[in-house]
Amino acid sequence: MFSTLSPGALGLDLDHSRAVDLAAAHGFGGVDPDLAHFRTLGPSGTAEHAAEVREKGLQWGMAGLPVPLDAPAAEFRQALVDLPAALELLKAAGVTRVGTWIRPMHQELDHRQNWRLHQGRISLVAALLEDAGIRLGLEYIGPKTLWSTQRFPFIHSLREARELIAETGAGNVGLILDSYHWHTAGEDAAQLDGLTDAEIVSVDLNDARADRELDEQQDLDRRLPFDTGVIDLDGFLRAVTAAGYTGPVKIEPFMASLAERPVDEVLTEISGLLDRAITVGADAARER
Amino acid sequence: MFSTLSPGALGLDLDHSRAVDLAAAHGFGGVDPDLAHFRTLGPSGTAEHAAEVREKGLQWGMAGLPVPLDAPAAEFRQALVDLPAALELLKAAGVTRVGTWIRPMHQELDHRQNWRLHQGRISLVAALLEDAGIRLGLEYIGPKTLWSTQRFPFIHSLREARELIAETGAGNVGLILDSYHWHTAGEDAAQLDGLTDAEIVSVDLNDARADRELDEQQDLDRRLPFDTGVIDLDGFLRAVTAAGYTGPVKIEPFMASLAERPVDEVLTEISGLLDRAITVGADAARER
Amino acid sequence: MFSTLSPGALGLDLDHSRAVDLAAAHGFGGVDPDLAHFRTLGPSGTAEHAAEVREKGLQWGMAGLPVPLDAPAAEFRQALVDLPAALELLKAAGVTRVGTWIRPMHQELDHRQNWRLHQGRISLVAALLEDAGIRLGLEYIGPKTLWSTQRFPFIHSLREARELIAETGAGNVGLILDSYHWHTAGEDAAQLDGLTDAEIVSVDLNDARADRELDEQQDLDRRLPFDTGVIDLDGFLRAVTAAGYTGPVKIEPFMASLAERPVDEVLTEISGLLDRAITVGADAARER
Amino acid sequence: MFSTLSPGALGLDLDHSRAVDLAAAHGFGGVDPDLAHFRTLGPSGTAEHAAEVREKGLQWGMAGLPVPLDAPAAEFRQALVDLPAALELLKAAGVTRVGTWIRPMHQELDHRQNWRLHQGRISLVAALLEDAGIRLGLEYIGPKTLWSTQRFPFIHSLREARELIAETGAGNVGLILDSYHWHTAGEDAAQLDGLTDAEIVSVDLNDARADRELDEQQDLDRRLPFDTGVIDLDGFLRAVTAAGYTGPVKIEPFMASLAERPVDEVLTEISGLLDRAITVGADAARER
Repeated sequence: MFSTLSPGALGLDLDHSRAVDLAAAHGFGGVDPDLAHFRTLGPSGTAEHAAEVREKGLQWGMAGLPVPLDAPAAEFRQALVDLPAALELLKAAGVTRVGTWIRPMHQELDHRQNWRLHQGRISLVAALLEDAGIRLGLEYIGPKTLWSTQRFPFIHSLREARELIAETGAGNVGLILDSYHWHTAGEDAAQLDGLTDAEIVSVDLNDARADRELDEQQDLDRRLPFDTGVIDLDGFLRAVTAAGYTGPVKIEPFMASLAERPVDEVLTEISGLLDRAITVGADAARER
Repeated sequence: MFSTLSPGALGLDLDHSRAVDLAAAHGFGGVDPDLAHFRTLGPSGTAEHAAEVREKGLQWGMAGLPVPLDAPAAEFRQALVDLPAALELLKAAGVTRVGTWIRPMHQELDHRQNWRLHQGRISLVAALLEDAGIRLGLEYIGPKTLWSTQRFPFIHSLREARELIAETGAGNVGLILDSYHWHTAGEDAAQLDGLTDAEIVSVDLNDARADRELDEQQDLDRRLPFDTGVIDLDGFLRAVTAAGYTGPVKIEPFMASLAERPVDEVLTEISGLLDRAITVGADAARER
Repeated sequence: MFSTLSPGALGLDLDHSRAVDLAAAHGFGGVDPDLAHFRTLGPSGTAEHAAEVREKGLQWGMAGLPVPLDAPAAEFRQALVDLPAALELLKAAGVTRVGTWIRPMHQELDHRQNWRLHQGRISLVAALLEDAGIRLGLEYIGPKTLWSTQRFPFIHSLREARELIAETGAGNVGLILDSYHWHTAGEDAAQLDGLTDAEIVSVDLNDARADRELDEQQDLDRRLPFDTGVIDLDGFLRAVTAAGYTGPVKIEPFMASLAERPVDEVLTEISGLLDRAITVGADAARER
Repeated sequence: MFSTLSPGALGLDLDHSRAVDLAAAHGFGGVDPDLAHFRTLGPSGTAEHAAEVREKGLQWGMAGLPVPLDAPAAEFRQALVDLPAALELLKAAGVTRVGTWIRPMHQELDHRQNWRLHQGRISLVAALLEDAGIRLGLEYIGPKTLWSTQRFPFIHSLREARELIAETGAGNVGLILDSYHWHTAGEDAAQLDGLTDAEIVSVDLNDARADRELDEQQDLDRRLPFDTGVIDLDGFLRAVTAAGYTGPVKIEPFMASLAERPVDEVLTEISGLLDRAITVGADAARER
């Protein structure tokens, strides 16, 4: 597990080069790759850039999957047409993780129809990613205030996400585990038992507002880890550590206030919180 | 399609013999069988009773399935132990339809787990019913105010219900089609296209309150058919008639006020509404 | 149902223009479209050609689906890249039916894995075809001598094929019904009951060798319809006619001897057999 | 892993008391429970008997599941009626493992229909067993000479069996791993990677005839472990040992010749082979 600077997740508008410098300056272990930036560099420029990032002691976090999983077929097809160019850049950079989230509801497709749509498309995309040596992370979304907003709720729990991943039959698909979704899904540490590093592509750490009931928590209104103590981060981190997880961990609080504070102050805090989380996880796993 | 007196659906506390007499007196085409009453009569008494009911010109509606589909395994097993005695009575009476509803949410089982539970148990129960010449009706439940009340929404649409029925692989399982669930599920007449008599075990007719949004409609607070006009009963009845449906149709308004009025007055109204519905369906199907 | 000349199905090496002329000369109702020929003409040339074909009184049969459903992901993706150009030609020609067969076994993927592969890919392809107004026919393969040749048998029955089609959720996918596969799958007319025109994209008529047991019949060694009488073509044609089937019917005997005979003699025989089949179906449906 | 005497698996006709004595005399670690014998003893007699067996230093192997999983529904229901009496005896004895095999083909039900049948029934039976603290082992059957004998092949591989077990959603269902089925299914040690003790209920060790091709091996014509060396028992035992497997291991060669030899001679050989296997597994796991 290594701390990662993901400007987008923090709501910070940083260009990629600055993000790399700030990640190094603030002691992050990694930084999220930026496919748009790679496109401006081309494959060989991207490879050079990646070498510089590595020299700064940084690993790559996770890029966004450039394929809209539940788009209309024509749009999905177009993304497949464009995919090889993106994969060439990611490969040149040495990026090994891309990810996306699963929309937890649908106005037209019921649970089983939507499952088939996702299963089929994820299987195909995963196979194309595998040829490029890239793993795919899938994030399930927990808040009831989101999954209950359309006619057909969809995957909004860890067990469902794991079954979907198993059904893709792909060895390179795993979870994006976000403590916020785990908590709002009504899950606890027992459900993380037995997870392995191979099943986890990325980890997000967040806390929740203390003044809201579980079913009232909002997807886009979270708190920094260890802030309210609403979420059992000790249990979460112990499980992730016990899984032997080796990938990126980031914070994604959707707090607009972060963008209003001095960026160095914010990143000092974020980096410190992630370091604390890694320590908490290691301690908890040891004590167990 | 024949009108049926179902005292329970109307919230009327009538003993079975009186219900039979009232059904005949008020011109219903049928009356719901009462397994509890059959138990007091035994198989041969039940056969005699059924002959009398037939002599009054009444057909049997639908009995309740005496098996709790989603009970703990031990309780479900016990219901299977007890099932043959109930089937012997239903067979003696000449009842050919039993039914139950599908709970549209679960606190522990997610959609796919709950699907498997239902698929497996319904398949088994259906096979046992088939040996007795009895069909099983399944009712999907539409109101969001119900399906959104626990962690995992389950079947709450016609398409899901039909897929579940198809997966049971049983030729004797069909739908209980209730206009209230069809409406609250956000469905319209197009979705009833192509239904056949073999797919429908029972039909319920209800209207909805005019002062509530679709997603605010309550399962237990409905209106009598043709009352508010909120529900497209013409479209519903046209489709059911076009399907060549030959079974019972009843009203299930969950209006406590019915039990407070004189029973003869209530049944005159109900019987008249059902006759009107049958006429509306026939006219609509003809015009089409 | 209209008779169709499909040179490939007959093992005849005819260029497309000659096939069109021969189809017209021998009284066929239609001819199979030839995508390779359309490619040489381009979209507007194809439209002109199609107008000429129509003027000769011929309808289009079914084109081959230019997507290998179970190819490695990269190859499948490439076919999707190329698909729009093919669809533009088919659309220009007014072709509305394409089809492919389902390989009934796999050396690596077991039944459920292979099902998911097919479900996902067919759903995607069907949606892309639907945008072009084209239906997709899927042919299940019956002979045990084929499905038993690798580690994992796959779909080799009508019921499985229909379930797969239902799971694609696509309104434009249907069956290619071949009497040879229906027979070798051990099926009879009862299993064709209730089929509708919307479920059938193409029909193939063949008979089987009389000197082989059912399980010994070979996929590529068949007989002309009505030759041996091994296959119940009356029952098959009655069901297809009762379904109100409006599409192409062809013969696909895989008999090398046809290519050795004078082509006019062969086509006279084939056209006559198809006319006879259409009459047999109409008579049988009427008598029933 | 402990060696177990299973007279039935060896084709020996030993009454249960004698089997217990022989198991102790020949140094087996366990003996298979005999439900028929328990029935003659009743619950308290069974408890006393079990205490004696434990005093001889023997553990219980696995009893046969007294429920025919794919029987007609009425027969399956009757087995559920009778199940509690059997479970009371098994519980009194302290037996914690029962098992059955999955018939790898069906004349009427295709793969998906048969899957649903098994999934539903196993889920129900497993829940009833769980209430009694008993685990259920399922054995997949590998030989093509068996799975190809009817219209619809069914589960005949490890992966399928594991998916079925996962779909039961039961924590007390696992595999009966038989080296003979693993081999004839075309599997190798890689496919056993990552197995855990919780996934294995029982282990069978057998070798295969050297004079037959893989696809010609017969289910009921095997060889004693280490006899021909056709089966990679080292790889198999290494994986089972690496899984931390703690349950019974037996030999099930279906060799009629065993019953013709002096029983003590046979059991000396069998016990020795099982001891050798346990040593081989430990050595292989250590070396790795």
